[in-house]
Amino acid sequence: MTDQATDPVSRAGTLLDELRSRSPRVHAITNAAAQALTANLLLAAGAVPSLTTSAEEAPAFTARADALLVNLGTLDAERRAAIPWCVATCRGAAKPWVLDPVFVDAAPPRLDLAHLLLAGHPTVLRCNAAEAGALLGETPTPDAIAAFALAHETVVALTGPTDLVVDGRRAVRIDNGHPLMGRVTAMGCAGTGLVAAFAAIEPDPWLAAACGLLVLGVAGEIAGAAARGPGSFVPAFLDALDALTPADLAGRARLS
Amino acid sequence: MTDQATDPVSRAGTLLDELRSRSPRVHAITNAAAQALTANLLLAAGAVPSLTTSAEEAPAFTARADALLVNLGTLDAERRAAIPWCVATCRGAAKPWVLDPVFVDAAPPRLDLAHLLLAGHPTVLRCNAAEAGALLGETPTPDAIAAFALAHETVVALTGPTDLVVDGRRAVRIDNGHPLMGRVTAMGCAGTGLVAAFAAIEPDPWLAAACGLLVLGVAGEIAGAAARGPGSFVPAFLDALDALTPADLAGRARLS
Amino acid sequence: MTDQATDPVSRAGTLLDELRSRSPRVHAITNAAAQALTANLLLAAGAVPSLTTSAEEAPAFTARADALLVNLGTLDAERRAAIPWCVATCRGAAKPWVLDPVFVDAAPPRLDLAHLLLAGHPTVLRCNAAEAGALLGETPTPDAIAAFALAHETVVALTGPTDLVVDGRRAVRIDNGHPLMGRVTAMGCAGTGLVAAFAAIEPDPWLAAACGLLVLGVAGEIAGAAARGPGSFVPAFLDALDALTPADLAGRARLS
Repeated sequence: MTDQATDPVSRAGTLLDELRSRSPRVHAITNAAAQALTANLLLAAGAVPSLTTSAEEAPAFTARADALLVNLGTLDAERRAAIPWCVATCRGAAKPWVLDPVFVDAAPPRLDLAHLLLAGHPTVLRCNAAEAGALLGETPTPDAIAAFALAHETVVALTGPTDLVVDGRRAVRIDNGHPLMGRVTAMGCAGTGLVAAFAAIEPDPWLAAACGLLVLGVAGEIAGAAARGPGSFVPAFLDALDALTPADLAGRARLS
Repeated sequence: MTDQATDPVSRAGTLLDELRSRSPRVHAITNAAAQALTANLLLAAGAVPSLTTSAEEAPAFTARADALLVNLGTLDAERRAAIPWCVATCRGAAKPWVLDPVFVDAAPPRLDLAHLLLAGHPTVLRCNAAEAGALLGETPTPDAIAAFALAHETVVALTGPTDLVVDGRRAVRIDNGHPLMGRVTAMGCAGTGLVAAFAAIEPDPWLAAACGLLVLGVAGEIAGAAARGPGSFVPAFLDALDALTPADLAGRARLS
Repeated sequence: MTDQATDPVSRAGTLLDELRSRSPRVHAITNAAAQALTANLLLAAGAVPSLTTSAEEAPAFTARADALLVNLGTLDAERRAAIPWCVATCRGAAKPWVLDPVFVDAAPPRLDLAHLLLAGHPTVLRCNAAEAGALLGETPTPDAIAAFALAHETVVALTGPTDLVVDGRRAVRIDNGHPLMGRVTAMGCAGTGLVAAFAAIEPDPWLAAACGLLVLGVAGEIAGAAARGPGSFVPAFLDALDALTPADLAGRARLS
């Protein structure tokens, strides 16, 4: 379903180089367990993270960033107050912002908030199947997701053993990754940060999301082969992301 | 002091297998430095963690969890507001909840709160000698701890170079562990999360606590032998916990 | 510019031994991404960390600590309320406190707060060039920094590829360190914690700051040689700090 002009594999290699040379800033309002890993993943990829969640400060950090990550985990009063102002800052400046509706299937007030945020047209929505089911209100089939993406003017990046990136017109499946990625807390959350970093430098959000997830999956595969378990996986993953080359992506990508 | 029917060594092996097959959910209200490590320890053991500390959300997460961890570290307004509702959620549903009164010896308002929480009969109270001394108001001798456990209808899991698990009728000492466990922040806090996970699947809280501390100590010994210092200890510990077998427990347990 | 009596290299070796034998307590009000790393760095160095940010509790922890770290990252309402009381606790007891004005160049309200805090004469101010420029309101030349240190009765520890420690009368440059230190989140923040630990046991704050940064830089070099990337750097750094000897410092120090 992909054509040459927007082939995620070759574009991901180019974007990886650009990320390292341009070092975009990503402001992340993310959950407490994900903050350090998200910052370290962004630094390993070449981006510059900031993390404050205070409503007094986060809009100023968002204004100087190139993209915003909004993750709904550990949604306390500070985060709840800061998120709408940060999203408004992005929308006013036509900057990309990426939504990660963590555990939206588990807490009704969080689902309400996610629906309000979807009205602000996130550039990319990254979620798993349970979260997508809660947001759609139905089984998240590929067709239902495509309709949802079109209706909300967003790109849906559905992650799982196979990732699916859909904007309603285009779809790509990514079969890279490693089982240990699911055995580490906040790996998905931190990965959404990388999607935000790619969205900062790639104007096509579908391509940014596909490239971000491809890079994550390939770095995860390399790390998984080197790790002895979930503990050694995290340092191995950051090392692999730091050392990743366009040739690694070309050699390992499994897209359909 | 242990009999065959409730021998913690063989039971710990069985529970470890059950933890991996049943994957109980543990909601953890824990301190900021412990959140990521607690989640990663629970994932490495086979459980499913959630971490939100907001009073609007934490009761909903507790309601869908199989056990609750309440750790009093970094006790901010959010945690202070959330904890009583989460404990009430557990008590209403007869679910286990485990209390870790971190540094209760250092801050008087925290000690007051811990006493209020003890009135709610935590399934297990995990603390060190300084914290036990503050809670008991006297030197925490084995007899004083046994009387305290009976009076508060709880199991006391006193950790240190030798752990002691007491419910007033039974007592077991565990001599496993490694000095590097005390050189890593939040190792004890995260370990209490494992006790909560065991309490989720073992109805006898004394046995759950003893099995949880035994598993921690043996994984710590294996990791300590592989680590080069406190930095490499953490990934080695998570790897060891992930790979731990009932045979490791049987071969290494030092109980009395 | 250094004389024998206050030679940072030999003094750093002595202080490292003292840190391990005296185990000073450091209370750290620091940002969410730095809390675990700061605690682990302090533990690896031989100090005892505490981390609560609540205004109800942090002054009690500060009162029993030997030094305070105030880091302005992720400056939420809790931290904002707690910081002035903790600083007042230190000043009333003539205990050292160290200020790390993270990202003060990025958020105007944070800059205002930093100026208020400077009026309380931090024992050491640790910052990078961008933060120093914002605080000074001019290019942070060595002369401008020396004048600022004298005017504010503080020691300025300016970190970067070369560190500069200045109290207005004395100055030392430290050329140790490794590029991977800048690829890990909160490495600088955690390092300021080590400066606070040295200030807890060394009454000359200029010497404490110089020794702290020297130890950080040498441990970073050793770790950088062992690491395969930014992921494996963190465990290697903590291992190196734990194993560091006065001979390592004497053999590797590059001061001028």
